[in-house]
Amino acid sequence: MIVKIAVDAMGGDNSPAVEVAGAVAACKEWGCEVVLVGDTAKIQAELEKYQTRDLKIEIHHASEVVGMHDSPSDALRKKKDSSIRVAFNLVQQGVASAVVSAGNSGAIMASGMFVLGRVKGIERPAIGTFLPNLNDQTMVLDMGANVDCKASHLYQFAIMGSLYVENLLGKPHPRVGLLSNGEEEKKGNDLTRETHQLLKASQLNYLGYVEGGDVYNGAVDVVVCDGFVGNVLLKVSEGLAVAIGTMLKQEIESRFLAKLGFLFSRQAFSAFKKRINPAEYGGAPLLGISGVGIVCHGSSDPVAISIAIRQAGEYAKVRFEEKLATLL
Amino acid sequence: MIVKIAVDAMGGDNSPAVEVAGAVAACKEWGCEVVLVGDTAKIQAELEKYQTRDLKIEIHHASEVVGMHDSPSDALRKKKDSSIRVAFNLVQQGVASAVVSAGNSGAIMASGMFVLGRVKGIERPAIGTFLPNLNDQTMVLDMGANVDCKASHLYQFAIMGSLYVENLLGKPHPRVGLLSNGEEEKKGNDLTRETHQLLKASQLNYLGYVEGGDVYNGAVDVVVCDGFVGNVLLKVSEGLAVAIGTMLKQEIESRFLAKLGFLFSRQAFSAFKKRINPAEYGGAPLLGISGVGIVCHGSSDPVAISIAIRQAGEYAKVRFEEKLATLL
Repeated sequence: MIVKIAVDAMGGDNSPAVEVAGAVAACKEWGCEVVLVGDTAKIQAELEKYQTRDLKIEIHHASEVVGMHDSPSDALRKKKDSSIRVAFNLVQQGVASAVVSAGNSGAIMASGMFVLGRVKGIERPAIGTFLPNLNDQTMVLDMGANVDCKASHLYQFAIMGSLYVENLLGKPHPRVGLLSNGEEEKKGNDLTRETHQLLKASQLNYLGYVEGGDVYNGAVDVVVCDGFVGNVLLKVSEGLAVAIGTMLKQEIESRFLAKLGFLFSRQAFSAFKKRINPAEYGGAPLLGISGVGIVCHGSSDPVAISIAIRQAGEYAKVRFEEKLATLL
Repeated sequence: MIVKIAVDAMGGDNSPAVEVAGAVAACKEWGCEVVLVGDTAKIQAELEKYQTRDLKIEIHHASEVVGMHDSPSDALRKKKDSSIRVAFNLVQQGVASAVVSAGNSGAIMASGMFVLGRVKGIERPAIGTFLPNLNDQTMVLDMGANVDCKASHLYQFAIMGSLYVENLLGKPHPRVGLLSNGEEEKKGNDLTRETHQLLKASQLNYLGYVEGGDVYNGAVDVVVCDGFVGNVLLKVSEGLAVAIGTMLKQEIESRFLAKLGFLFSRQAFSAFKKRINPAEYGGAPLLGISGVGIVCHGSSDPVAISIAIRQAGEYAKVRFEEKLATLL
């Protein structure tokens, strides 16, 4: 099976330089096949910086770009030749197997849904993301636009998250937790209490309610929540990590001995930074659409893009959609 | 005005040793007056470790203790002589001006409401908490039991948070933000969109939607959310801070040079740890009940308790309830 990845070359904060560099790296290191989608001239100019003769990289033109502040519906209605949309068209036409984009996540999800449709039985597609924990990583979903959810939505998020972790991370019977404000059954809000009953009756390896702290201690493999809470969780984490880094730097830089000590510790700090960098754990998969898509952070570097391209290839190979359909 | 603080000596993880030590420190350093409420014999045994002759510390007996896993309603119904309840009784009788407890926060709120009642016009009392940010601190509320909120509840939380920050932290016109999944008006869920309209029409210095990252960057002074989201935010933050600390420690300890460097940097790490310790910013005030209460973390140390005792005294002096009543 040949797996070709359509990479939206225009959506990120540093496009198309980062996407082109990432694609070149993925093709060199893992022999991936990539179609770079976007402004041909700009992509061509970046590609010329690399030796690409033996690599399977092509360009597919798209004349428009969706901005980070475009609404998903505007992106769909007004930018029919956007790089995101055209990338999904390539999947729909059978030219590519998956899409990778560092663009506007709402627009990526909307375009994927519009062009490829939902998996039959799925009420709301979701976006999953991976956060580092003390042992390896935790998948959290939904990180997408599903801000007002019903219990049946969260229930399906749990099924999709578990299936992804089992098939893509190779963990049998992933431990699933429902995010709540306490571990006891009587805790939670109306939504979690209803969802809890559905999950208890499911075939999943459901451990019950988990708390915010369990995202980072490795207690479960999958954490389920609505997209509003998921967004808060992610942004709070990013903000706190930055604040901790800044404050520690300030304290070290204000002391001569500490600055000296830091020189000795530099390697440890680099290893640590790499370990807590979510991009090391791959991009965020779209779940529940009839096709494969991976969303990268807008500020992704080439390494993050290359990891996401490889991940998209693996995601395309596991026949996720068929497996999901049989579970529903 | 004499301000005497009723300290629940039995509720925390290391009671009554920590509460007694904290009370002694508060009385010595700031001349506070304290009534320690709980098991007289145990409190007496701890008190004998200190020189207390010139301090204004007394003991008031209470025969029962509310555990961390007791439900608030069980605590109210079955433990009428609990140290938490008796402490609030002392406020109700005019013997004390405020309560400090490191116990079960749900039971503290329920006891405060039951014994002292709500401020007229307040639909749901809330618990606020303080988190360190790059400049100073951010107040986040609700951290209490209000998991399913209406817009009118969040609106009142905003008023109470703003009033607290203005009067207790001395910041005029506190900047208030409503926690959402994006800054644009079209973001948010049903609850935040309705609350946003109420806040826009209010007299508050309301800056609109803020994101999770704004809790730690100092963009606003007060962040408003429901108790479910507030709990997730707090627990995610605690969990991430612990995970970051553990991972950094692991990376440093696995390298000889880094270990050496750490010795030089130790002072900076201590200063940093103190700076991100929420206890340094005081306990969590109860807001909207007819009286003053401060909730401390169950694992508080004596310094945290002493800071909370001083804070409770200041809170009791500003006539918060009267000011709140005029705003409603």
